[in-house]
Amino acid sequence: MAPAKSKASEHFSSSLARGLSVIKAFDRQAPMLRIADVAERTGLDRATARRFLLTLLDLGYVGRSDDLFYLRPSALDIGFSYLASLDVNRVIQPYLNELTAVTRETSSFGILDGLDIRLLARSANNRMMNMTVPLGTRVSAHSASIGRVLLAGLSTERFEAYLGALSEPEVNAGQFRSLIDEVRSSGWATIEKSPGVGFCSIAVPVRDRDGGTIAGINVVEYPPRNTPQAMVRKYLKLLRNAAEQIEAALHVSQHAVLALSDDPGGPLLIG
Amino acid sequence: MAPAKSKASEHFSSSLARGLSVIKAFDRQAPMLRIADVAERTGLDRATARRFLLTLLDLGYVGRSDDLFYLRPSALDIGFSYLASLDVNRVIQPYLNELTAVTRETSSFGILDGLDIRLLARSANNRMMNMTVPLGTRVSAHSASIGRVLLAGLSTERFEAYLGALSEPEVNAGQFRSLIDEVRSSGWATIEKSPGVGFCSIAVPVRDRDGGTIAGINVVEYPPRNTPQAMVRKYLKLLRNAAEQIEAALHVSQHAVLALSDDPGGPLLIG
Repeated sequence: MAPAKSKASEHFSSSLARGLSVIKAFDRQAPMLRIADVAERTGLDRATARRFLLTLLDLGYVGRSDDLFYLRPSALDIGFSYLASLDVNRVIQPYLNELTAVTRETSSFGILDGLDIRLLARSANNRMMNMTVPLGTRVSAHSASIGRVLLAGLSTERFEAYLGALSEPEVNAGQFRSLIDEVRSSGWATIEKSPGVGFCSIAVPVRDRDGGTIAGINVVEYPPRNTPQAMVRKYLKLLRNAAEQIEAALHVSQHAVLALSDDPGGPLLIG
Repeated sequence: MAPAKSKASEHFSSSLARGLSVIKAFDRQAPMLRIADVAERTGLDRATARRFLLTLLDLGYVGRSDDLFYLRPSALDIGFSYLASLDVNRVIQPYLNELTAVTRETSSFGILDGLDIRLLARSANNRMMNMTVPLGTRVSAHSASIGRVLLAGLSTERFEAYLGALSEPEVNAGQFRSLIDEVRSSGWATIEKSPGVGFCSIAVPVRDRDGGTIAGINVVEYPPRNTPQAMVRKYLKLLRNAAEQIEAALHVSQHAVLALSDDPGGPLLIG
């Protein structure tokens, strides 16, 4: 075993941490990378970047064309372990499907992850042609109806930490506090129309047994055809009904509640 | 650097390989694991399994409740790097969406990965309620229309290797060879009805610039309402049109073609 520098690092495998950072160096902007690019994007030295790229090549997660490396489909297996472990298809998807069947609008299930929400399940209607957000995508929490019900579920302390960490200048802290206060008392949040994107949505929280908010579900109209008030009349009861069914399915599984919750002690939300 | 046992292993980071195997130890059947369970599932000793679990805990990919560990949402980031790098939303999704808009049936895009196909994109219609197969899922290639066009695109040598590696006794090698011969000459494959699942589908290949098959797209009727002959009349022209558009979008990107192709030299298909 390598000599440990401190108690905290005694068990820590920096090889694993570095190797994972190499996988995450690939993205839409840079799908093909040279060793030097990976070194630059990860902060590793070239020899280390090379070593992890070649390991990932051996394992089949990475392909190579001359001096360019790229991710291969097997890389999907790693992340999908999470969705598989959550059993989304049994615990969440059927209820979203019912909601979409009744409303004829797209519905989604999302959780809070740092400053963003992350969509873990969705039932899409047909009209939602140009707006396909891939599952797992992060969306700014403050600009999403699901994000707003999740923010309304935070403790005051954590909500203030969230506000403090927001870099976007268009969010006025005072106004946003009032908005989230309203969400907290009404139990739902709406997005009337986001800048540049023609949709409107309404979300309600999904709660654990203690009443804590662990997720949110929404209905999205695209293109938007209703005011927030009309959306409440049209969808709120259906959404609450779906949320209750998902809660009942989730509460059976200790794992599902844990896997969705953000650890207050974990690295999730800004210190 | 650790002493290398052979030239091949000189660059190999076994820590990275083991750490990734720990992530993949979690699945639907076993979403919460003790250290001993991880050791058993990965073949690692307990101390090593513990070390990687604690590293993943530090990195935020894993959560812990008493002595049970589970994956956290951040684990999604790792695998989604592949989908993000492929830019599925721009290069593939719009054409599937158009296909679904015209046919009013679900359409999918898949690639070959070992003995399976893997669905990388889909545009779902509303009726497809009970059949939601998550993206990234593996499906036996021989039982899927997309799988059959992909198998028809293999060299004789690789197709025979595939047949030899199939363990399922219900596939009669001689009959399956004739079936794939037909697919090769017609340029499309149909599934009339799979045992236990009420759907029918038709697929066509998506080719690279040299005419090699790199992916397949299909239209699925669920519930099935047409014979294979009727599906060909109804969907073949639309499918070919969509395949051509996807090919044009793919050929612009050297990366997309590489990321979809299986390396003949890689670990993908059975030796």
